[in-house]
Amino acid sequence: MIKRVHHVGVVVRDMEQAMRFWRDTLGLHVHKLETIEEQGVKAALLTLGDSEIELLEPVVTDNGVARYLESKGEGLHHICFEVDDVERDLGALRQKQVELIDQVTRIGLAGRICFLHPRAMGGALVELCQPLDEPSEEPAHA
Amino acid sequence: MIKRVHHVGVVVRDMEQAMRFWRDTLGLHVHKLETIEEQGVKAALLTLGDSEIELLEPVVTDNGVARYLESKGEGLHHICFEVDDVERDLGALRQKQVELIDQVTRIGLAGRICFLHPRAMGGALVELCQPLDEPSEEPAHA
Repeated sequence: MIKRVHHVGVVVRDMEQAMRFWRDTLGLHVHKLETIEEQGVKAALLTLGDSEIELLEPVVTDNGVARYLESKGEGLHHICFEVDDVERDLGALRQKQVELIDQVTRIGLAGRICFLHPRAMGGALVELCQPLDEPSEEPAHA
Repeated sequence: MIKRVHHVGVVVRDMEQAMRFWRDTLGLHVHKLETIEEQGVKAALLTLGDSEIELLEPVVTDNGVARYLESKGEGLHHICFEVDDVERDLGALRQKQVELIDQVTRIGLAGRICFLHPRAMGGALVELCQPLDEPSEEPAHA
């Protein structure tokens, strides 16, 4: 069901400082940089082969990214796998009684997504995504 | 200089339990499983598109992986980028005064490798690797 590593999410305290490493020192291309108010994060997407690095800086204090930064500090936050059919795969994982964060898929930066619970696999936070190629698709669970 | 995400390293407390998620639930193929005595880890490599997941269980108590498990718990540990010429890139990073763990490259699971210091980029541990395709290459810095 899993096709590839779509991106690796990294929590940072300060986007500009993080850019000095990821963009300036490593030379990665930033292809998106925006503040997503409804998620309370500033996000940057950097191209890395056919994958991406997603830098996340919390801009509020009460979301998962902010709590992660508070409790664990900066660093690797999640890994996102691209799948063909995220609805089907979420259903299959639910049948296997895998612990989930998202009970239904929703629209995220990477397309239609869901997060599994890190308890499901020993602390590693895993996201599944199905990139959207139809601009008319409605964010039914945004 | 960076070509792609070569692998993502995940620290686990118990390899068999981790396999239940990564191999059995997600369905990833395990193409290598071995204990590397000189590094004090049991390592499994699972195929994921053209990248890999590297599961690491410490088998000693006094290496970096064991200390990571002790202080941070299980979870995402490092991200490894494939480069063309790891010697050249390590030299370039040194010139940019990037903080390093490995001052010289060495032979690791992924080929000729080096680790940058997580302080260089806000907590994320980054490895660079140049896969070895010449079986005659000597592990000069193993």
